Amino acid sequence: MANPTAAICVIGDEILSGRTKDKNIGWIAEQLCGLGIQLTEARVIADEKKTIIRHIRELSDANDYVFTSGGIGPTHDDITTESVAAAFDVDVERNQEAMRRLEQHYKGTEIVLNEVRKKMADIPASATLIDNPVSAAPGFQLKNVYVMAGVPSIMQSMFEGIAVTLQGGTIPTRLTVQCATGEGNVAQILEQISDHYESVSVGSYPWFKPGLFGTAVVLTSLDEDLAAKAARELCELVRQAGFAAEDAV
Amino acid sequence: MANPTAAICVIGDEILSGRTKDKNIGWIAEQLCGLGIQLTEARVIADEKKTIIRHIRELSDANDYVFTSGGIGPTHDDITTESVAAAFDVDVERNQEAMRRLEQHYKGTEIVLNEVRKKMADIPASATLIDNPVSAAPGFQLKNVYVMAGVPSIMQSMFEGIAVTLQGGTIPTRLTVQCATGEGNVAQILEQISDHYESVSVGSYPWFKPGLFGTAVVLTSLDEDLAAKAARELCELVRQAGFAAEDAV
Repeated sequence: MANPTAAICVIGDEILSGRTKDKNIGWIAEQLCGLGIQLTEARVIADEKKTIIRHIRELSDANDYVFTSGGIGPTHDDITTESVAAAFDVDVERNQEAMRRLEQHYKGTEIVLNEVRKKMADIPASATLIDNPVSAAPGFQLKNVYVMAGVPSIMQSMFEGIAVTLQGGTIPTRLTVQCATGEGNVAQILEQISDHYESVSVGSYPWFKPGLFGTAVVLTSLDEDLAAKAARELCELVRQAGFAAEDAV
Repeated sequence: MANPTAAICVIGDEILSGRTKDKNIGWIAEQLCGLGIQLTEARVIADEKKTIIRHIRELSDANDYVFTSGGIGPTHDDITTESVAAAFDVDVERNQEAMRRLEQHYKGTEIVLNEVRKKMADIPASATLIDNPVSAAPGFQLKNVYVMAGVPSIMQSMFEGIAVTLQGGTIPTRLTVQCATGEGNVAQILEQISDHYESVSVGSYPWFKPGLFGTAVVLTSLDEDLAAKAARELCELVRQAGFAAEDAV
């Protein structure tokens, strides 16, 4: 059976302007890989309601899971919640449990839970809250879309809470074979392995250091034995061609 | 007149698996901002021909420019060239100028320009070559799509060559106002500024350090004077509300 699929949707003008560098795609990608969920694509989109609605619908239809980050704070430019709700024709309402968490969080601090901050308790009806251990204001799950904060530490704390609830799949085996030569010298061998082991994906990543170069070949498969067999055969063929090769991982 | 628009398309399974962290989106985003070209979205997609064709067509139709990175090396998993060509129903052919550059590059080295490496001289007919000062194998421009290498240093050297040929626009003015309070205390002011200055985009970015917190408010506009006026008014309103505020940049 194929693994469940997922897409990531990073929402934020600050990423598109280059002002802030995204760190969420790479982090979520790694987590999904460890859960046996296949990331099919990632998008970075603007803080525009129509844009968000269009992308959320598209990604939700095409994937088992969608993970968003960004745009759920208290300010006027935080429009992810209303946009995701609109994508599914659901109303946004003040969520009592979310309010309780905000009250609890701000109690005894100097920060006033004013009308603006209460906006963070506005959640689409029928959505499930996603815990925010860092700053209380929750994310939410609506249909197959998981809406999380943009700040990496908060997003990560949210994702770790939902990870256990996700239906994972087979964790892919990923073996790296290091070849002590340029990829142009092993390309035919890689193609041969790729053709022979149809369910093993063969990726080729050349690398360079001063005075040294080589090719990291990454064999990925849901079948652990097959990946190992392909890695052994690859090593043999590369050595027969006159280059050093070793199972690095 | 509105600025020209662009999309970025990062092509590579290694990014989606989390094995490699993308560095190209943030770098290209910054360059485009400096050229007055508006980045509308960025996508990371898989090394699959059908997938690449679909996304390239979509992004090419919707934007003035599309910049891709990844998948133009010599191995079997490098399918960007044939896929982009197929997206525009153009044939791929051995490009004589690209061959000359590869021959020149490998002359006097131990590296043999074998059949596999010659694949890097296969370029869509009617495409224009993009120089590769680092490792010779060129990228190409086909219609409004600029196809570049995935390795950041090579991609950057390619982009710097084409940057001068791009039709830029007005470089946006971006002013940051640092407010010494949480965003929940300035949100109403930000909304007021945003409503009052329609052509100024107002972004709010809370930050935390041990014992300190604040809100960076970023005002972006193609109209420099208007951005400055909005920043001054914002500072005044925040100070009137009882919090420190300063034009940080």
